[in-house]
Amino acid sequence: MDHDRKPIRSGMGRSTPDRIFVQGFDLVEDVIGTLNLGDMAYLEMTGRLPDSRQSRVFNAILVTLVEHGMTPMAIVSRLVYLGAPESLQAAVAAGLCGMGTTFAGTAEGAARMLHDAWETPGDQDADTLARRIVADFRARGQSIPGLGHNLHKPQDPRTARLFTIAEQEGHAGRYVELMLAIGAHAQAGLSKPLPINATGAIGALCCELGISWKAARGIAVIGRAVGLVGHLAEEQGNPIAREIWQRTEAEASRQDDPIAGNGRREAP
Amino acid sequence: MDHDRKPIRSGMGRSTPDRIFVQGFDLVEDVIGTLNLGDMAYLEMTGRLPDSRQSRVFNAILVTLVEHGMTPMAIVSRLVYLGAPESLQAAVAAGLCGMGTTFAGTAEGAARMLHDAWETPGDQDADTLARRIVADFRARGQSIPGLGHNLHKPQDPRTARLFTIAEQEGHAGRYVELMLAIGAHAQAGLSKPLPINATGAIGALCCELGISWKAARGIAVIGRAVGLVGHLAEEQGNPIAREIWQRTEAEASRQDDPIAGNGRREAP
Amino acid sequence: MDHDRKPIRSGMGRSTPDRIFVQGFDLVEDVIGTLNLGDMAYLEMTGRLPDSRQSRVFNAILVTLVEHGMTPMAIVSRLVYLGAPESLQAAVAAGLCGMGTTFAGTAEGAARMLHDAWETPGDQDADTLARRIVADFRARGQSIPGLGHNLHKPQDPRTARLFTIAEQEGHAGRYVELMLAIGAHAQAGLSKPLPINATGAIGALCCELGISWKAARGIAVIGRAVGLVGHLAEEQGNPIAREIWQRTEAEASRQDDPIAGNGRREAP
Amino acid sequence: MDHDRKPIRSGMGRSTPDRIFVQGFDLVEDVIGTLNLGDMAYLEMTGRLPDSRQSRVFNAILVTLVEHGMTPMAIVSRLVYLGAPESLQAAVAAGLCGMGTTFAGTAEGAARMLHDAWETPGDQDADTLARRIVADFRARGQSIPGLGHNLHKPQDPRTARLFTIAEQEGHAGRYVELMLAIGAHAQAGLSKPLPINATGAIGALCCELGISWKAARGIAVIGRAVGLVGHLAEEQGNPIAREIWQRTEAEASRQDDPIAGNGRREAP
Repeated sequence: MDHDRKPIRSGMGRSTPDRIFVQGFDLVEDVIGTLNLGDMAYLEMTGRLPDSRQSRVFNAILVTLVEHGMTPMAIVSRLVYLGAPESLQAAVAAGLCGMGTTFAGTAEGAARMLHDAWETPGDQDADTLARRIVADFRARGQSIPGLGHNLHKPQDPRTARLFTIAEQEGHAGRYVELMLAIGAHAQAGLSKPLPINATGAIGALCCELGISWKAARGIAVIGRAVGLVGHLAEEQGNPIAREIWQRTEAEASRQDDPIAGNGRREAP
Repeated sequence: MDHDRKPIRSGMGRSTPDRIFVQGFDLVEDVIGTLNLGDMAYLEMTGRLPDSRQSRVFNAILVTLVEHGMTPMAIVSRLVYLGAPESLQAAVAAGLCGMGTTFAGTAEGAARMLHDAWETPGDQDADTLARRIVADFRARGQSIPGLGHNLHKPQDPRTARLFTIAEQEGHAGRYVELMLAIGAHAQAGLSKPLPINATGAIGALCCELGISWKAARGIAVIGRAVGLVGHLAEEQGNPIAREIWQRTEAEASRQDDPIAGNGRREAP
Repeated sequence: MDHDRKPIRSGMGRSTPDRIFVQGFDLVEDVIGTLNLGDMAYLEMTGRLPDSRQSRVFNAILVTLVEHGMTPMAIVSRLVYLGAPESLQAAVAAGLCGMGTTFAGTAEGAARMLHDAWETPGDQDADTLARRIVADFRARGQSIPGLGHNLHKPQDPRTARLFTIAEQEGHAGRYVELMLAIGAHAQAGLSKPLPINATGAIGALCCELGISWKAARGIAVIGRAVGLVGHLAEEQGNPIAREIWQRTEAEASRQDDPIAGNGRREAP
Repeated sequence: MDHDRKPIRSGMGRSTPDRIFVQGFDLVEDVIGTLNLGDMAYLEMTGRLPDSRQSRVFNAILVTLVEHGMTPMAIVSRLVYLGAPESLQAAVAAGLCGMGTTFAGTAEGAARMLHDAWETPGDQDADTLARRIVADFRARGQSIPGLGHNLHKPQDPRTARLFTIAEQEGHAGRYVELMLAIGAHAQAGLSKPLPINATGAIGALCCELGISWKAARGIAVIGRAVGLVGHLAEEQGNPIAREIWQRTEAEASRQDDPIAGNGRREAP
């Protein structure tokens, strides 16, 4: 049962009676009243304070995924709050549990795809890399992360806006270039639109800012935590969770339904 | 099983193929590149855009609770990530589940106490209200929310900073006044220090900004979501969860311990 | 930052290379193949193996709350699974977060009410205690835990069954007696039915079996974890989460709705 | 925004004022007092009542993963309970979030491996299949699910017990045969022990009982929910979460540590 003890160390923060340090900065002197919440997220995730250009790009990424109306996660948080109003934090947590592969994983996947491509040794240009990436995903029968949207087409309006801001702030480099090239190659020859969606743009900008692809899903999680608190604030004044539940239950258990409404089965 | 159907309505957001609305504002035109994440949180929670003074105060509140070192929630998120690295969102969610009564409930409690006091009809001043509030909590044997800290004493350095910023921005009104009066009355006659802590200051500033006390816990949840993503980013590069687990397990299950290490009990 | 170190001890379980102990019993010799899952839960929660009568009563309690159709928690688990199919565990977890005050807290509340009543010193009988408890709750304007149901009336069919089983197994003692007396006093003089519901019966039987009221909510959590895995197994073969989401979203964001569908607001 | 409406249907359960149906069985007549919790889980996951042999095998699987001492999930649940004692359900939920790929995914992976192998068309025997499976995993550089344990070696004592019970009850068929063959081929030529671990045995027995591999992770989730409620019941009487937290925090934020304890960094 014994094991070699390793030290437990962290540079995130520490406190003394009269001071609190965050990544080595003084919370009271350097952070409160100076940094906005997006800058603070940048400090937490990178260990560095953002300059004004990084701040604008990073805040733009963060606000993009906060609110998208009545998503599954928003419905989840409202239903949990109905059952456990003593525990608003668990209602937000339950909603966040849904920010997985289906909705948030594509930002991670896009960031990883772009990061790995440029890490591969060799003299390569974006166009060549894009061509190969598109071919590889198609050969494996996989969809390319960051492309396509069931509602926002032929273009996802968030993508152009994010890339414009990155351009304005000097952060539209080779990852943006590669994402655009992948989008172009993937669209070529298709009749239906395959836009670069918001998670594709966010994946590219994470790479531009030096955020690890492993943490890219965290961007979506932070944004959505803000949005879910917003939905719960609305639910407190205008509750709809009970109605969602009752309608769903009523339909799922209709007595005349051959699945739900069969009479009593015989226990053997 | 039937029920009276009520409409399901929400003003949080809606989308068309080429536009996304957030509380009636256009995400692409009005939000991305314009609002920082704290401003977005203000919009989500109040339905209004903050002016520059509200923005500074609200962002100050939000960044205050992001990072406090190796808290129980940070340990939780790291341990969950060890078990489910495919699911960063669930690691953040698990940590947030711990932002309950013990750590975040006091911001809610302080906001409620201050809100309710000024709502009570009658010609009253802060000093009179404070005197009665302190007496009432003591009579019920309850601790007063927003007061006291086991480390940050005799003063919590975050409190003075937050109240200074509120003063600078014209948001130090009757709720700040009442919180200060409660702190003074509670301290009077005590030999050990009972500072107004950060959650007390945050509760007061929520009231000043018109945030409902019911949603005040959400401020702590948003901030801590940012912090937990930060801890997971550190854990990805510098993992410590396994060491925390193994040390705890080794000590808890020592064979020579009369609780853990008793030999096999006889099944009847 | 230093603190007085206390030992970290637990009697729950420990392992050696060739053996695993659970509460001192040998998992392989005494548990696997011998205990059913309900007996194992009894061992975990009490540290004792149940006799056959305790086993029947405890398993009866546990199975009662497993399945109640399309509850809010079942909807939650299905929606989270839609977003994070890689993480079935988080889908169950999210649903469990909703087992709070509204749905599971009443079992805890009933157990506490019954436990505290018999702990109060004095020569008292169930009828006298019940009369006072009903009067006290009414004076405080609180509803009595374990009474009332919006669907199952005038009687909750689970209650009679649970009390019958307790009777058969010799576990219908003073807590059952008191719960029945409370039900009778609370009903007296009311025109609408106020049955003892399943959580009231479960609260009483927890007390009969020596389960702490503080852990009574855990009974509901265990049962519902089983039920939520069942719902996810059905969702895997017959998915309905997307339909629930899309209907809710479509209605919540109708363009002709004065809340959701207002045109673009003017940013100041 | 419109979509083709599909029906929302479920066969899990429905209620009328005087009856509750679970998968078509009457909860009061057929379930409470008759089924133990493991049988109920079988009904929920398969839609069928188990016979006595299925009941013994399935309960054996379920109890196996309930308790393994101070696991990461047990620590998580205790820490969350420290922060949110009002919300025992969220403490269990947080712990369950950690039952992911690292700890529970191997039962799922083993079940899938065994299921897929026998589904592949062709006249094949277990030995041939096992040889190819081992070779395939090795060629991909992946570890084989269900094999290996860092503590329980050279044998995992749970495995032999589970296979013996399956044999006794007539449920040791081709999936057990294949798992044993995979274990033998994987061990051949290795000097260090590579036992079939408990999750490998559970994966095989899920297949024998007709449980879908997609739901196999649910077995681990149900068992661990029971175990985490047990740990919280112990924590209520013998709290250790605060000590785990304080030790970890004290070490992680040592002032003399070059990572944590650096002086204040200069904000630019």
